[in-house]
Amino acid sequence: MTTLILLRHGQSEWNLSNQFTGWYDAELTELGCREAADAGRVMAAEGFAPTMLHTSLQTRAIRTANLALEAMGRIWIPVARHWRLNERHYGALQGLDKAATAAKYGDEMVKVWRRSYDVPPPALELTDERHPSRDSRYAHLPADILPATECLKDVVARLLPYWHDAIVPDLQAGHTVLVAAHGNSLRALVKHLDGLTDDEIIELNIPTGVPLAYDLDPTTLTKISSRYLGDQEAIADAAAAVAAQGQAKH
Amino acid sequence: MTTLILLRHGQSEWNLSNQFTGWYDAELTELGCREAADAGRVMAAEGFAPTMLHTSLQTRAIRTANLALEAMGRIWIPVARHWRLNERHYGALQGLDKAATAAKYGDEMVKVWRRSYDVPPPALELTDERHPSRDSRYAHLPADILPATECLKDVVARLLPYWHDAIVPDLQAGHTVLVAAHGNSLRALVKHLDGLTDDEIIELNIPTGVPLAYDLDPTTLTKISSRYLGDQEAIADAAAAVAAQGQAKH
Repeated sequence: MTTLILLRHGQSEWNLSNQFTGWYDAELTELGCREAADAGRVMAAEGFAPTMLHTSLQTRAIRTANLALEAMGRIWIPVARHWRLNERHYGALQGLDKAATAAKYGDEMVKVWRRSYDVPPPALELTDERHPSRDSRYAHLPADILPATECLKDVVARLLPYWHDAIVPDLQAGHTVLVAAHGNSLRALVKHLDGLTDDEIIELNIPTGVPLAYDLDPTTLTKISSRYLGDQEAIADAAAAVAAQGQAKH
Repeated sequence: MTTLILLRHGQSEWNLSNQFTGWYDAELTELGCREAADAGRVMAAEGFAPTMLHTSLQTRAIRTANLALEAMGRIWIPVARHWRLNERHYGALQGLDKAATAAKYGDEMVKVWRRSYDVPPPALELTDERHPSRDSRYAHLPADILPATECLKDVVARLLPYWHDAIVPDLQAGHTVLVAAHGNSLRALVKHLDGLTDDEIIELNIPTGVPLAYDLDPTTLTKISSRYLGDQEAIADAAAAVAAQGQAKH
C-alpha cells in the first residue's frame, strides 16, 4: 500500500478577515493552530505515520505541518519545500477584501475569478510591491517564471512538475508522504489524482485542517481510494463554509 | 564572507529536572521556547538571515530552530536533519537524575563521564528499551552504527562526516547556514572549527539559546572569527550555569 496524505492549512489571519491571500504570507490564527494540531491527532488516531513531508514556501502551510507533526511526535521527519506547492496567486486581487471585491466587480465576476478553471484575475505589474520577485524566498528565481496572477489551470501546470519530479519518487521509495499546502494547489493535485474534468474540479471544496488520505497503486501511483480522516459531519460543515466564501455580504 | 551560526536548543524538560537526556526526545519547556524565539530576534536584530537549516533528529533542537526562524519570518528556508547532529548518547545514565547519579557514583566519576574527552559511561544493552534501535526515526539504520553510549571523542567521530559531507557543501554554495543542535554535538563542531585540543574542549561550555556566529574563509572554511550574538553579560551567566550542572546537591 502506498499512502499519500494531503493537508490544507488551518485558518489564517486573512481567511479570517476574508481577504484574497494568495502569495501574501499570512500567519495562522489561534483557531488555525488548533486545527493543525487536531489534524495531527486525527492522523495518529487512525494509524497514519508520515515519513516524509512536502510543503509550500508559505508560513501558514509550514506551521500547519509542524503543528500536526508535533502533535504526533513526528516533527523529525525529513521535509522538502517548494514554491510549486504555494497557493494560487490571485494577482491584483491579493489583499482585497472578498466582500468588497464582490461589491465592486459583482458576485458573478468574482465567482468567475474564484471558480472558473481558466480565467485569471488582472495580473500584478512587475513593479508592484506585491510581486513575488520582491520576496527574498523567491529571489533565486527569474521573475518571468514567477506568477503575477493565476487561474486554476495555471496552478495545475506549475504544480504537476513537482508532483512527478519530487513527490512521486518519495512515494516510489516507500515513503508515506504528507503534503501540507493550500486550497488551490491541493485542488490541482486532486484534479490529477482523481482524474477530474475542468468542470468537476471547480465544484470541489477542500476543508481546512482535515487530512485527505489516498491509497495509491504502488506501481502506477494512481488512486485506489481516498477518504477524509476524522469526524465526517464536521468535515461536511467545513467544506460548506469554504464554498460560502466570496459571496458579497448584503 | 561565509557565515555559519550554531544554536544550542533552549531549556528542555529534562534539563529542568536535571536528568541525563542524551537521545531521550525531551520537549522544550516554556522557558526553552522563549529562549528559542529570543535567539531568532537576536539574529534578525544583528542582521543575520540564515538561508539553510541543519538540525538533529531531536524535537528540542528542531523546535528551537522553528521558533527562532518563525520569530525572524524565515520558517520557509530549506532544512536537512540528521542523527549525526544529535546530542551525545549518555548510555546507561540516560534518564537518571544528575544529582542522584553523582551521589551514587561520586562527583568525580560523574565529572569524568561528563567532562572527560574519551571515557564513555556504561553502554546500553541492545535489548534496553532506551536503545536507539527501538526508535522509529532510526529504524532504517543498522543497530551497530547507532551509539549505545558515547564520550565526546565518539561524538566528534560521528559528527565530522556530516560536517564535511553535508554542511560544508551548503556553505560553499553560498548559504548562510544555521545549525540547531545540542551542547555536545556543537562542542564537537567547535573543537574542529576552533582547532581546540582534547583538554581545551572539555572546559568549553556553550550556553543554550545563544546564536554563535562564525565568519569563515570562503575557500578553506576555516575560522576567521566567531562571537556570540546578543547581551554579552547574560551569555556569560548562561555559560556559568551550564558548567555548574552535574555537581551533586549537598
